[in-house]
Amino acid sequence: MTEIVAEEAPAHDGSVVGVLTGPNLAGEIAKGYPAATVIGMTDAAAAARLQDAFMDPAFRVYTNPDVVGCELAGSLKNVMAIAAGMAKGLGFGHNTLASLITRALAELTRLGVALGGNAGTFAGLAGMGDLIATCQSDDSRNNRVGMELARGKRLEEIVSELHMVAEGVKTVRPVLELADRENVDMPIAEQVNRVLHEGAHPREAVLTLMTRRARSEL
Amino acid sequence: MTEIVAEEAPAHDGSVVGVLTGPNLAGEIAKGYPAATVIGMTDAAAAARLQDAFMDPAFRVYTNPDVVGCELAGSLKNVMAIAAGMAKGLGFGHNTLASLITRALAELTRLGVALGGNAGTFAGLAGMGDLIATCQSDDSRNNRVGMELARGKRLEEIVSELHMVAEGVKTVRPVLELADRENVDMPIAEQVNRVLHEGAHPREAVLTLMTRRARSEL
Repeated sequence: MTEIVAEEAPAHDGSVVGVLTGPNLAGEIAKGYPAATVIGMTDAAAAARLQDAFMDPAFRVYTNPDVVGCELAGSLKNVMAIAAGMAKGLGFGHNTLASLITRALAELTRLGVALGGNAGTFAGLAGMGDLIATCQSDDSRNNRVGMELARGKRLEEIVSELHMVAEGVKTVRPVLELADRENVDMPIAEQVNRVLHEGAHPREAVLTLMTRRARSEL
Repeated sequence: MTEIVAEEAPAHDGSVVGVLTGPNLAGEIAKGYPAATVIGMTDAAAAARLQDAFMDPAFRVYTNPDVVGCELAGSLKNVMAIAAGMAKGLGFGHNTLASLITRALAELTRLGVALGGNAGTFAGLAGMGDLIATCQSDDSRNNRVGMELARGKRLEEIVSELHMVAEGVKTVRPVLELADRENVDMPIAEQVNRVLHEGAHPREAVLTLMTRRARSEL
C-alpha cells in the first residue's frame, strides 16, 4: 500500500508514508480493551510524532522503520489464518493451533525476510502479534473461511455469504509464486492453496503437514 | 531437570538426558488432536532415534540440541501464563492477549539467551508454541491463577483450591533474580510479581505496562 500511495501521490514525501498494524481487531479497540500496535515508517521523527499522538493507556504504540516488513506481515498472516480456521473447524484444540501458529510464523518470516523485511518485525507485534490475534479470533474473515471449509462448505458458497473480502483467498497464489521465486519453502501456504483452489479436504491437508519428513527445529 | 538427572544418576550418559516439550497440553494429546513437539537433547543420534519412536500422524516431533533453551522456555512461560490469565480475567480480548504473548516472548527470550539458550528455540515450539497454548488454555493452572486474581480472589485461596502446583507462582521470584543478575529488563514478570506477592491489583498492573515510556520495536 505504501508503494501505491507513493505512486499515486508523488508530491507527497514518501518517507512519511507509513503503516499502522498489529493485533488490532477493530471491534476490540472500540471497546477500549488494551492493545499494542506498530507504526511502520522510515522517517523516525514523523513516526515519533504519530507515536505521541496515538499513545493511550489502552493503545500502546511502538515505532518500526521496517515498512516493508510491517506490510508483508499483515498480508501474509491472512493465508495462515485460513489454515488456523481449518484446524478450529476440524475441532482441534490449543496444541494444534499453537503448533500451527508457530510454524506459520517461521514460514512467513522466511518469505518476508527474503523479500527485504527485518526478522525482528515478524517476531514482533506486526508479525507474531497480528498472526496470533487473527488466528484466534472467530471474527476474522480469513479464519471463518477456514472453519467453514473444514465443516464441508464449498468456497464459492462461503465467499458469497461473507459479503466481505477474505484477503487470504486471493493472496495465497501470489504468495506461493513469490515463495517459488525466492526459493522459500511454505508447506502451510501450499496446503491452504490445495484446499482453497484444488479441492483437497482440510483433514487431508493437516495430515500431509503432520507427516512430512522429520526434521531438526534449528 | 536434566542437570538434576545428571547429578543423581552420574553413571548415566549425560548426553542422552533430554527433554520433550512444546504445546502439549496432555488432555488434548490424549484426544488425538494434532500437536508438534520438540525433543531437546545434545546427542543427535539418540534424539533421532526418539524422534522416530514418537513420530505419529497426530504428533510431529522436531529435534533440537539446545537442551537448556528448551528447559528454560518451558519454565519461564509459566510466569507469563499468569499474566495472560489476568488479561482474560479482566475481560479483555484477542488483541490484549496477542500483544501480551508477543511481548512476553520477547521478554523471556532475552533472559533465556542471557542464560545460554538459543534464540531459535524460543521462537520455536518449545518457546512460542508452548507459550501460546498455555496462555490460551483455561485448563492451564498458571492461567487459572491469573484469572482468579483478576476476579478478586486472594492468592492463598486460589492455591489451596487448585490442589495442584501452579509453577509460575514460585518461579517468578527466582526469574526476577536471574533477570537482575543478567541485567535483563522483564516488565511483565515484574508486574506478575507485584500482583502475586506485593498486593497490586491486576488492572493497575496492566495499566503500568501499557503506560511505560514509548519505544521503538527493533
